[in-house]
Amino acid sequence: MTTFNTQDIRKQFGERVRYLRSNRELSQEDLAHLCNLDRSYIGGVERGQRNISLLNIKKIADALCVSPRELFDE
Amino acid sequence: MTTFNTQDIRKQFGERVRYLRSNRELSQEDLAHLCNLDRSYIGGVERGQRNISLLNIKKIADALCVSPRELFDE
Repeated sequence: MTTFNTQDIRKQFGERVRYLRSNRELSQEDLAHLCNLDRSYIGGVERGQRNISLLNIKKIADALCVSPRELFDE
Repeated sequence: MTTFNTQDIRKQFGERVRYLRSNRELSQEDLAHLCNLDRSYIGGVERGQRNISLLNIKKIADALCVSPRELFDE
């Protein structure tokens, strides 16, 4: 079976969120506020510790003004 | 805040999984077997009833030989 990247998808996703958030000069607290999620939850997502699901993926995508697709590496 | 698509992300995701699965001429049961997930769970995902999270998104992507990114509409 093809595995496109052996790195944990949670880590990859978290790094992508951190990159896009920093690019927009938002703090974790800013992003948390925009998403209506907890700052510590955002921290956990960025560190790859959270198995985040679709509805929260959408909240983060909306807050960063990207499509959910753009939260995943190419 | 920009919302790229107002349709429920669970519905969009499910339709995309169904489309890719059908394209590969796999049954829900085939896909479930490849993912090591339950057939009824795959059915729920395709109907947009499941708030699926990263680790299972990765299992489905691997089983369909696509990157997780490709499971999200452009």
